[in-house]
Amino acid sequence: MAEQNQKKRVAGDRLRTFIAAAFEAVAVPNADAHTIAQLMTQADINGSEGHGVFRLPQYIRRIKGGAVNVKPNIRIERELAGMALVHGDNGMGHLVMKLAAEKAIEKAKTAGVAWVGARWSNHAGPAALYAMMPAQHNMIGLYMAVGSANHLPPWGGLDMLLSTNPIAVAVPAGEEPAVILDMATTVAAYGKVKTKAQRGEMMPEGWMMDRDGKPLTDPKRANEGFLLPIGGYKGYGLALVLGLLAGNLNGAAMGKDVIDFNNDDTSETNTGHAIVAINIEAFQDIKEFKQGMDTLIRDIRDSKRLPGVDRIRLPGEGTHTTRVDNEKNGIPMPPALLAALDQLAGELKIEKLSR
Amino acid sequence: MAEQNQKKRVAGDRLRTFIAAAFEAVAVPNADAHTIAQLMTQADINGSEGHGVFRLPQYIRRIKGGAVNVKPNIRIERELAGMALVHGDNGMGHLVMKLAAEKAIEKAKTAGVAWVGARWSNHAGPAALYAMMPAQHNMIGLYMAVGSANHLPPWGGLDMLLSTNPIAVAVPAGEEPAVILDMATTVAAYGKVKTKAQRGEMMPEGWMMDRDGKPLTDPKRANEGFLLPIGGYKGYGLALVLGLLAGNLNGAAMGKDVIDFNNDDTSETNTGHAIVAINIEAFQDIKEFKQGMDTLIRDIRDSKRLPGVDRIRLPGEGTHTTRVDNEKNGIPMPPALLAALDQLAGELKIEKLSR
Repeated sequence: MAEQNQKKRVAGDRLRTFIAAAFEAVAVPNADAHTIAQLMTQADINGSEGHGVFRLPQYIRRIKGGAVNVKPNIRIERELAGMALVHGDNGMGHLVMKLAAEKAIEKAKTAGVAWVGARWSNHAGPAALYAMMPAQHNMIGLYMAVGSANHLPPWGGLDMLLSTNPIAVAVPAGEEPAVILDMATTVAAYGKVKTKAQRGEMMPEGWMMDRDGKPLTDPKRANEGFLLPIGGYKGYGLALVLGLLAGNLNGAAMGKDVIDFNNDDTSETNTGHAIVAINIEAFQDIKEFKQGMDTLIRDIRDSKRLPGVDRIRLPGEGTHTTRVDNEKNGIPMPPALLAALDQLAGELKIEKLSR
Repeated sequence: MAEQNQKKRVAGDRLRTFIAAAFEAVAVPNADAHTIAQLMTQADINGSEGHGVFRLPQYIRRIKGGAVNVKPNIRIERELAGMALVHGDNGMGHLVMKLAAEKAIEKAKTAGVAWVGARWSNHAGPAALYAMMPAQHNMIGLYMAVGSANHLPPWGGLDMLLSTNPIAVAVPAGEEPAVILDMATTVAAYGKVKTKAQRGEMMPEGWMMDRDGKPLTDPKRANEGFLLPIGGYKGYGLALVLGLLAGNLNGAAMGKDVIDFNNDDTSETNTGHAIVAINIEAFQDIKEFKQGMDTLIRDIRDSKRLPGVDRIRLPGEGTHTTRVDNEKNGIPMPPALLAALDQLAGELKIEKLSR
């Protein structure tokens, strides 16, 4: 790809340092800045290009606008053997969800399964980032969130009452890479639309529709239409129930209460998420489970193929390949993104990424 | 609808008695026969026409063939504060999942959230039936299952390694009916294909594909092709992870080990399911939650509509309307189904439904 070759690649360590410096420049405490930077960089290493450093200018803008609390008192509000509710105190979502995931993992060690909800949080990056945390402890991780902007009307409707509410599930295997599903309940996530816009590319038909029901393919006109759910009314139903589980259940924003964080730098979002940790050893022998995973993964990969298909992929396989590549060769940065980050560095008086 | 008018309607009580008599005729103990009959009839009352009495001839055939244990020792194999694993001892899935749901509800009262898996079970009818059980106790119910036949290849593949693995979520509201999502991860559930075949109707394009990648619309040719997942590779990923959660995690059958219970009357299926009960009061005030649900439901219903759309529906709304109608007027029975049940009654020497 010509475009790919033009991309400068930035080492993970360098990107982490840059992101941490940006957050410290807007008064985020050192330890928190480094935690956020580590998670955002991991998102980019994993290839979640719409949810890593791409979001940095927006995060900084919202902190400067007073929308996000840089010194939050993130705390456990409620707790029982199989659940907890985290109050994010309007801190960065990454901090809130790291604590929530750690709490879920800790509780699942004794309870077998633990469900931790969060409210008064903010955008936390890609869903898979948190689902993968339990997977590093021989647990299955399940993450849900209310998206940070409503781009989806109910099926047949026009009012933007739903977001792309994502779900991620990470299941560890043995010798094979973990199965990691990370999907928006819309055909395309809004982050992908933003990426297309930044790159000056058009969207394929089927991603968005305008208010007359016609296909919308220009990402710069995104605010004139809405995203389409997967499987029609099924995807609408899925987006709704994920919103109920991550939003309503936790007393977080849903429906009309969701703030579009792309176009608002001053309001609290009360973003809701949920993370579930499922301790595999509570259900069965972990070794047998992992062997079963490897067998299933190989059966799927070795399936006979439809005419014209050269390879069967497992969810998370692309992420795995990208991660190995990016860890070795650095993270590819499109020129437009690099320019935006240089501009941000100038504003914050920190060292530029493109030096 | 002309066809609708031809349908005889059978009262719920009468259908329940008929189903119970059928199971008793094949040596299912009286209490179990009545439990199964109650759940199967409820499926029909709810309008789950592919998963109620429609399945009776098949269930009886499999019991007669020795595939299902009529006197199972259904038991809790493993248990921690937030989870349990049920061993179904190859009993009817309805009995296994009723016990599993009751266990989840009981545990969620103290643990807040409880996840109960089941293995060595069988087909249990519609997913919503079990998700709705926690919803009657101010809890959110979440149900997942490994489907009882593989009709879905991995995305791009031809080997039938996955089923339509369904998910159901039931969320109670206040004055409004509960939100109840019940969906297969394929565009159409295989039960719907079977219903079309029985009615002599063709399927719309998009439900199934043949092995050359061409649309398949004749339901009588269903075994020459496969179902299509919602949202392409996303639905494949969703079917896979639901199968991992309901199957692999519990040590139940997945992938190549799944028996096609439509074409096998002698083999144990080791069907896996999972039910999660989420006690809303552990997270917040139940009254506030229900008010929030009502507000959201009304906001969605009152949304502005796309040209040509006369009503915005909530998931479960159709079920609610059908339930009210069927409880009052009886369950509509297509002539072909009634004929099949009369034939079964003759074989079992029990009173016919169509007398």
